[in-house]
Amino acid sequence: MALSNRQLQLARRPSGLPSLQDFTLTSHSLNSTLAAGQVLVKVRYLSIDPAMRVWISGVKTYFNPVNPGDLMPSLGLGEVLQSASDKLQPGDLVRGMLGWQDYAVCQASDLQRLPKDNNPSQHLGVLGINGLSAYIGLVTIAKIKEGETVLISTAAGAVGSVAVQIAKVKGCRVVGIAGSDEKCAWVCRDLGADACFNYKTVTSIRQAIRTHCPAGLDVYFDNVGGETLSAALQQMNQSGRIAMCGSIESYNQEAPKPWTNYSTLILKNVMVQGFIVMNYAQEFSGALTQLRTWLQAGKIKHREELLEGLENCPRGLRMLFTGENKGKVIVRLEPTARL
Amino acid sequence: MALSNRQLQLARRPSGLPSLQDFTLTSHSLNSTLAAGQVLVKVRYLSIDPAMRVWISGVKTYFNPVNPGDLMPSLGLGEVLQSASDKLQPGDLVRGMLGWQDYAVCQASDLQRLPKDNNPSQHLGVLGINGLSAYIGLVTIAKIKEGETVLISTAAGAVGSVAVQIAKVKGCRVVGIAGSDEKCAWVCRDLGADACFNYKTVTSIRQAIRTHCPAGLDVYFDNVGGETLSAALQQMNQSGRIAMCGSIESYNQEAPKPWTNYSTLILKNVMVQGFIVMNYAQEFSGALTQLRTWLQAGKIKHREELLEGLENCPRGLRMLFTGENKGKVIVRLEPTARL
Repeated sequence: MALSNRQLQLARRPSGLPSLQDFTLTSHSLNSTLAAGQVLVKVRYLSIDPAMRVWISGVKTYFNPVNPGDLMPSLGLGEVLQSASDKLQPGDLVRGMLGWQDYAVCQASDLQRLPKDNNPSQHLGVLGINGLSAYIGLVTIAKIKEGETVLISTAAGAVGSVAVQIAKVKGCRVVGIAGSDEKCAWVCRDLGADACFNYKTVTSIRQAIRTHCPAGLDVYFDNVGGETLSAALQQMNQSGRIAMCGSIESYNQEAPKPWTNYSTLILKNVMVQGFIVMNYAQEFSGALTQLRTWLQAGKIKHREELLEGLENCPRGLRMLFTGENKGKVIVRLEPTARL
Repeated sequence: MALSNRQLQLARRPSGLPSLQDFTLTSHSLNSTLAAGQVLVKVRYLSIDPAMRVWISGVKTYFNPVNPGDLMPSLGLGEVLQSASDKLQPGDLVRGMLGWQDYAVCQASDLQRLPKDNNPSQHLGVLGINGLSAYIGLVTIAKIKEGETVLISTAAGAVGSVAVQIAKVKGCRVVGIAGSDEKCAWVCRDLGADACFNYKTVTSIRQAIRTHCPAGLDVYFDNVGGETLSAALQQMNQSGRIAMCGSIESYNQEAPKPWTNYSTLILKNVMVQGFIVMNYAQEFSGALTQLRTWLQAGKIKHREELLEGLENCPRGLRMLFTGENKGKVIVRLEPTARL
């Protein structure tokens, strides 16, 4: 049986902020005859991540660059419709690189089967890469301790919003940085941060950090790089730690702001660990067990910004850089009748 | 009994490269009547270190800034002449912050008694702060492993020359960077590096690193910062480590070269640890035991550039930045008859 499959393909490399015109919606007929080991998946939820901006920039990362004409790769959740593998059955909920499309034909071995629960999209957020990034950055890498002061940039974002909550569970004093007063209020009220400031309206990021962290910083969870990174280092206590998870400030720029005061790393005996969470796979099982326990106990919450419909994926990506979202940006695709 | 004590005091803050005119030689009469717990020390060897340039710049570090009119502080070795402490006896060899002067009156508790051997100045080099910095940077922090490629800047300097030798003992492939062809030849022939290049004559530091480290870098022992740091990071393998011991490139500059490609830390999962060796005091005993064993077995050597006479201290400091020295710069002061 042939299915009609819509795909969003990269049309051109964005210059600066990604726009809707950088992607093309195409449609083709998908023959669902599967090779051995393959499954046909109906895509249900797509994870929209800042790293996508890097994938489409032409830079070689842990992925090959995405070129114009290619299907936009994307982590997602879906339901198995047909299976030619004994690993997965029709009806299974799976997570994997499904792409911006209605249906995906994948190797069963490339997918993870997930438990079915009432809130599947949390497997793309707090129980997915974002929750793992927050946990591994703070716990495995920065080794946060009770009573320490932890600064978290993009505190209202997908990773930051989980990081704020984890640091609170661990008994830290938590200060967030976000891009609007409304987000800051949300980070304090909803996520429990002790303070949060709007980097767009303060006169000096460094002064704002000093004001909100009078005892200095022990840990900085960095999602942005640039000026904020320099300012945070300046306020760092001896033997501070920086978990460098992202440098979103630079993703849309040809020449990102350089790091001017890095020699302070020496005077303050500071450790910086840049990380791609996939390199810490041996920690995932323990981290997920811990995250699930906190989630069930109501100590942390999954927070998402839900968009409806495949055609809204580019808008979701753009939102990450215009700062419209609170929590994880997820696109939900309409279900279809079982085959 | 009154002794005539010469001192070198800071005359003014240097602008750029320190010069002989930045210091004044004074002489005063020292009354050797000691308070309880004090000792009078005849200074014999003074350790000349790049960090001194930072101390006199007015920046607050782990020390208070040295101000014009102050005695220039300096690590040194001396012989106890008189003691009002039961911890030390006349004739003991001691190490401590003695200063650029002929005689020092110190608290016995601020000094370390050293074993007497035929080569006392090695306690300011391979068995002192420099050897400890090299050991702690490579072993404790960067955790070098057999077969890894290790890049070491200022490879002919006090710390670098020990670092090259330690990395070789540990079975690494070692590539040095130094500032003259003669030094490079010395680093390979005398210290055992597999390769060493002259950063002043290569057309591109990055290309030189690529040429000499065809399998990429696993560890970079950074003594310079700036352009070399960016170039090293670019050639780093996944999960590489940077032990950031110094940033000598910036010490004489108002605006040091910024770090432009730090977001590569994320893509390559690289760790940077800035360090002041004094923060690793709990490691000193084990490190010194290991260094002494290697020294006695002839696996590493103490290398020094010896100057004679107190008045040559400023010249020694300047040499560190003009790159005239090979190994540790030490100033030897004439002995005096026992009191």
